[in-house]
Parts: sequence; structure tokens; C-alpha cells
Amino acid sequence: MEINQVVGPLYCTHRIPGLEHCALRVLKDRKGKLLVATDPVGTRPGNWVFTVSGSAGRYAMGNPDILTDLTIGGIIDDWAPETIAQAAPATTSNGGPGEQPAPQSSDRAQAA
Amino acid sequence: MEINQVVGPLYCTHRIPGLEHCALRVLKDRKGKLLVATDPVGTRPGNWVFTVSGSAGRYAMGNPDILTDLTIGGIIDDWAPETIAQAAPATTSNGGPGEQPAPQSSDRAQAA
Amino acid sequence: MEINQVVGPLYCTHRIPGLEHCALRVLKDRKGKLLVATDPVGTRPGNWVFTVSGSAGRYAMGNPDILTDLTIGGIIDDWAPETIAQAAPATTSNGGPGEQPAPQSSDRAQAA
Amino acid sequence: MEINQVVGPLYCTHRIPGLEHCALRVLKDRKGKLLVATDPVGTRPGNWVFTVSGSAGRYAMGNPDILTDLTIGGIIDDWAPETIAQAAPATTSNGGPGEQPAPQSSDRAQAA
Amino acid sequence: MEINQVVGPLYCTHRIPGLEHCALRVLKDRKGKLLVATDPVGTRPGNWVFTVSGSAGRYAMGNPDILTDLTIGGIIDDWAPETIAQAAPATTSNGGPGEQPAPQSSDRAQAA
Repeated sequence: MEINQVVGPLYCTHRIPGLEHCALRVLKDRKGKLLVATDPVGTRPGNWVFTVSGSAGRYAMGNPDILTDLTIGGIIDDWAPETIAQAAPATTSNGGPGEQPAPQSSDRAQAA
Repeated sequence: MEINQVVGPLYCTHRIPGLEHCALRVLKDRKGKLLVATDPVGTRPGNWVFTVSGSAGRYAMGNPDILTDLTIGGIIDDWAPETIAQAAPATTSNGGPGEQPAPQSSDRAQAA
Repeated sequence: MEINQVVGPLYCTHRIPGLEHCALRVLKDRKGKLLVATDPVGTRPGNWVFTVSGSAGRYAMGNPDILTDLTIGGIIDDWAPETIAQAAPATTSNGGPGEQPAPQSSDRAQAA
Repeated sequence: MEINQVVGPLYCTHRIPGLEHCALRVLKDRKGKLLVATDPVGTRPGNWVFTVSGSAGRYAMGNPDILTDLTIGGIIDDWAPETIAQAAPATTSNGGPGEQPAPQSSDRAQAA
Repeated sequence: MEINQVVGPLYCTHRIPGLEHCALRVLKDRKGKLLVATDPVGTRPGNWVFTVSGSAGRYAMGNPDILTDLTIGGIIDDWAPETIAQAAPATTSNGGPGEQPAPQSSDRAQAA
């Protein structure tokens, strides 16, 4: 998935039937490239979101007949991309096979 | 989906059978890269459009037997890419989880 | 679909069984990047072609068991990429929704 | 598959239903681009991983209903990207068809 | 398909079940970008190969349950990328529709 910022809605009167009922959003990536995505989440201009592409993007609309190739998957909580990008991890090489991997969890209480 | 401008029709006498009845258009992205897309919408040179890629592009032709990987999904109303790209949203970080997301809507009356 | 120029055949004695009977071509894009595509059309070195990627590329070989991800879709008639790229359309923004779109057609007689 | 480094977890309170139970990770490629992937392996910040994209990424979660387009496929043992990138192979052209290919093996005892 | 050079094997003790029995190779493209591919062919460091991506890459392993998105499709015979890239075809525009296309063939005896 990729990280983008919502610029605003996209208005398209002449469009293919398979997109007729969908909210479309113009997104901008960190380099300024503009993209268009369907929005099942309900975003506002300025939100940082992650996007799901390909066939997963169709299913993410709750209906694979929606003819999108990019769907907003979620609004990122408290996103500060500059801080994240600079946060170079302390360990830059992986340990040997004896090392214990971290337990798998999506719990918000998990230490960042 | 991506945003491109229609340059004109593409003429191809020797082509694969799976594309025989389709209008093909040469498109140009904002960096000048040329692409080819099938056109179920009816576009003219100069139109700004968004394009749907991958298997969704095949279904967007109304017939998954059409062997395209890029289809024009719609003509963008009143598109001014320079204005859009510069319109940096006022909020650059997302609020906390208590914030209300905007209602989901593709209605043209929706505030931009 | 993308626009590439045929450089020549690709010779590959050790290859996967799913490609055994296919002509392979080395292609070059406008930036000089080299690609490999299956060729159901019959091209020569120097031809400008458009290519179909993804699962559509498999079906374009007339047999989805052919394990390609890029297939030549057609030889472009009278292609002059420099002229096309410079031909900036006169209209750079789209008209309103009341404007008539051009009729959809792939007929060679269509005005460019 | 591509090679990325884990930056940390991604927190997303508002997300699509198809991702509700999955751990999400922010990854960084060697050029600093940020990505988001689902993590079925259990990684820590700093780990170098390879990622699987497209529909294979959905199946890699053990459940194709998970609406991801990028999944962590494994933690690379003892990864030192700078050393690898500089290790230019001694042979820069392929031998003729009479040459014996190396036996196919994923055994760790295989000579590097 | 794309053209890459084999750097060496990839060791991954912690990996997803869907890749357990596959040889993994680190590849390098002509710009130095590192990639990971499954290898059903049996390659050595230094070999120039072409790679198949997407769902075709899964089928190319002989088993669509293998969760790869990039598979080595073949070892290129006598590959000299610099020579190929410089070999600009003599004809830079396509002839008219009356021109005979070259016969379609993958025979090694075909004139380059």
C-alpha cells in the first residue's frame, strides 16, 4: 500500500457506468504526483491515507463490480511523514536465525 | 487511477484480434510520457481524463474479453492541474481517532 | 498500454516450459530501458509497437497458458514519436458538462 | 519481490473492514520511499524484509479476503545491502547453451 | 518481462509458508536496483535473465500456490546489454499498412 494525502474531490460528469455511485478523490504523493482513488472511508482534504491498488482495491469497495484500481484503505492516525522518514532504525542489519521475532500484533497499545 | 491528457487517436492496422473494435487514444501524462488507452467514453484531443489500469480496465470496456490494460474512466470536469497541485491542504497532519470523518458522497453539490 | 520500439529477437535456450513456443522480442522505450515481450503480431527491428501488460497480455497471445506479462498488441502506423509528443493540444482544460463529447470510433477515416 | 526495511507499525483507526485484524507496518525502500505492508511474519523496526505484491500478497496472508496489495514475505538473514549491491558478479555475459546451469536449490548450505 | 542479472541466493529463515520450497535469488537491474525472484530454471551469479511478474510469475513456478510476484523465466544466451542498447534500429518510423510484417518465429536460426 502507498501513503498519500487527500487534495479534494474529483468531479467527473462523463464517466464509465462501473464508477457511477463512487466518491472519487484526488490524492497527492510526497513527490507531488496526482492520483485518483475511490473513497469508501470518508476522507477530508488534508488527510493522510494509505491506498490499496489492483484487484484488492476493487474488493475494498465492498463490491468487486466497482471498476477502480486504487481505493483509500484508511486514514492514518497522527501522521507526520517527515518524522517517520527520518526515524532511521537503530539496527541496520538483521540478526541471525536464532533471534526471536517480535510477536505479531496490530494492537494500538503496541510500543512504536 | 491516474490523470492524463488526450493527445489524439492511435492508428494501428496490424493489431491483435482482442482489440479489433476499440477506439485507441494516445495520452500524455504531466511529465510528457506517452501512453495508449482504450476509450469507451468518447474523448477529444485536449481532454483531461482519468484512466483505470489492470483487470478493472478490461471490465471498464463493458466486456472483459477486450485485451486492454488501460481504459479511460471519465472526462474530468473543469480540470486545471496547476491549480490543484498547488492547493496544499491547510491541515498537514491527521487528527486523533475522536475526529469525525466527512460524510461519504460523490454528489456534485459537495463542497470542494 | 505503452509505446516501445522493437530492437530484435531474444535468444533463450534455457527457459520455463510455459514460454516454449513463443517468439520473444527485446524492446526499448523512449528512455532507452530494455524490456522483453512476446510477439503474436510478427514485428521487425525498428517497428514502433504498443504493448499490453498483466493478465491481458496472456490472453492477447490467444492462450492464457502462455506465461508472459507483456505482449505486443499492434504495430503503430506511421509513427513519429517526436511529432506526437510536441503536438500539445490547443485546449488545455475541459469544458463544462454541457459540451458534446466526440463520437467513439476506431475508424481510420476519423479526423486526427 | 522487493527489499525494504521496517520502520515501525502503522496506526489506522478508520480503515476498511477487509484489513481489520491485520498488523500494518511502515516500510522504507533504499531510496527512502515509504510503503505500507501487512505483516504475517512478525517483524521489528530495523528488520530488512522482502515483500510480495499483487494478488500473491493477499494469498500470503493465509486468507485471500485480506485486502492488501503488499505483504511481508520473510525476514532476510544477515542482510547487508551495501555489500550485496557492490558485489558485481565476475561473469558479465552468459555462456553458450552447452554450459551446465547450477543445480536448483534453496538449501542454506548452498555456496553463496 | 524485464532483464536482470543474478547477484546470488537470498537466505530467509523466517518466511511465509507459501514460499517454503523455492530457491530465491537476489537480482540487480541495469540501474543497480535489487530485486528478489523465485528461480525454477537454475541460475548462477552473473547470469543475465528475464523475469516474469504478476500472476504469470506464479504459474511459471509450475504451481500457482507458490506466493511469488517475480519469477526467472529464462537465461539469456550470449547477452551483451551495452551492445543491444546501442544497436539503434535503422528504421525509426513504421511503414504504411501495405508493408509485409516479418514472419513470426522463435527459431534460433532467425536472422538477428
